[in-house]
Amino acid sequence: MSLLDHIRLCQQRDMARYRPFFAGHDRVGWVEHGLARRLLADDAHFQGDETALRLSPVFADFDSRSRAMAEVAARLVADGTLRKLRGEDFPAAAVHNGPPLFKLDRNAVAIFGIKACGVHMNGFVRRTDGPHLWIGRRAKNKSIAPGKLDHLVAGGQPYGLGIHENLIKECAEEAAIPESLAARAIPTGIVSYLMEHEGGLRDDVLFVFDLELPADFQPRNTDGEIEEFMLWPAERVLREIDTTDNLKFNVNLVMIDFLIRHGVIRPERPDYLELLGGLRRVGHR
Amino acid sequence: MSLLDHIRLCQQRDMARYRPFFAGHDRVGWVEHGLARRLLADDAHFQGDETALRLSPVFADFDSRSRAMAEVAARLVADGTLRKLRGEDFPAAAVHNGPPLFKLDRNAVAIFGIKACGVHMNGFVRRTDGPHLWIGRRAKNKSIAPGKLDHLVAGGQPYGLGIHENLIKECAEEAAIPESLAARAIPTGIVSYLMEHEGGLRDDVLFVFDLELPADFQPRNTDGEIEEFMLWPAERVLREIDTTDNLKFNVNLVMIDFLIRHGVIRPERPDYLELLGGLRRVGHR
Repeated sequence: MSLLDHIRLCQQRDMARYRPFFAGHDRVGWVEHGLARRLLADDAHFQGDETALRLSPVFADFDSRSRAMAEVAARLVADGTLRKLRGEDFPAAAVHNGPPLFKLDRNAVAIFGIKACGVHMNGFVRRTDGPHLWIGRRAKNKSIAPGKLDHLVAGGQPYGLGIHENLIKECAEEAAIPESLAARAIPTGIVSYLMEHEGGLRDDVLFVFDLELPADFQPRNTDGEIEEFMLWPAERVLREIDTTDNLKFNVNLVMIDFLIRHGVIRPERPDYLELLGGLRRVGHR
Repeated sequence: MSLLDHIRLCQQRDMARYRPFFAGHDRVGWVEHGLARRLLADDAHFQGDETALRLSPVFADFDSRSRAMAEVAARLVADGTLRKLRGEDFPAAAVHNGPPLFKLDRNAVAIFGIKACGVHMNGFVRRTDGPHLWIGRRAKNKSIAPGKLDHLVAGGQPYGLGIHENLIKECAEEAAIPESLAARAIPTGIVSYLMEHEGGLRDDVLFVFDLELPADFQPRNTDGEIEEFMLWPAERVLREIDTTDNLKFNVNLVMIDFLIRHGVIRPERPDYLELLGGLRRVGHR
């Protein structure tokens, strides 16, 4: 796959297959029509028609909505729609990183097309021959993208944790980076995409961080999620993205963003503007 | 003006006031309806109707189209539509930085809504208390934005010069930066906008560069375009953008992009995602 192939994959969706999902007056997600029809049979939780699915207005605050969505999620596991729950809650909001209207299990986020956030950190070493990037290989027993190449540190943004706090926590768990070092990570912007994924939509904003590491730094995984770490020249990372699908789908985009910001991918490339255009989602707000 | 005000200004347009302008099968620009009607009276150069303006198909190659547009531009000066010509040609293309279909005088670019490019370079010094940015004050006799604050180096992208070459040339002219130093500038991405401007549309892509300068570097203007240079802490630049309109309109956006990439503007700001969304044009491709 080429750089643009990876970007197109993350921006690929047929919105005609989905209807908006509302909590109160706010659209919080998108639900596939078939699932929406099945959910509408459950009039204790949902209202709506062919144009919209609404969480019943009897659930009017954060706690009651969260309880209602937990009941719905349990039912979706019982009927086989979801394989299992994750046991970790994500916030649901009208805008990314906005005030949460309810929380729900991470594994139910995509089938409701809920806006989700994550933190991705490029761990790099500055050398005279250009930046080198730390790359992790995901454990083969992970449920998502087993064996794929990944960032030094990356994770979803759970309910109840700030972005910076989450980054510090993930740095400790995934690569044994002490807080004193992790706190030097620089937020550099976002990557965002809206893609069909396992019967639902991933509507994601990834907060991107760069952490410049000392030459003698050696990451060590502490939560069993990463099998090994490698330090690669940026050019090698670029070649890997441009010719394989060895990286986790969204990691490709965050690394393309890194390679652009650090001048490894340059304006002379004919696809430069198209790459930049695809790193932030357009449309369907 | 706030950060978002500057961004909104650069994305402000009422496209209903314009019709597409074609050369051959390619849309190269947008022309305001009143001007389009006047141009259509000149059937030696134009064809079209209320939905589109077309350069006459008798002009079928780069040279004949360029000559035709030069005749049109001269006539627009004669009838007072344009104050004067600039004597510098810009390329016109179907996509930004794409193969040029013709060239035309820089002062006629906006009233034809032609896609234009530029180079903007953040000259900065890394200090323990954070990045400091070199800021220029534009000469009071400049035709565009006299007296406004500007980048250390910035300029439009003329016909016949590569992006990197143009940057090297502007570095020498605007700040006496030798080629050996200018060549270290890192391309970091783009800022783009589509805004109404002096009876036309500016449809601009700015190629952004960062150049880290030594602590003892002192810029010196050689072309009379910049009156003085100041080295400001990034926080002071942020405050100036957030509370004044002292910076040239598009310089605000490129500096906001710099402040985001360098972690001075952070994800905790409630307008973070809106700022990022506004730095690259959306729609009307």
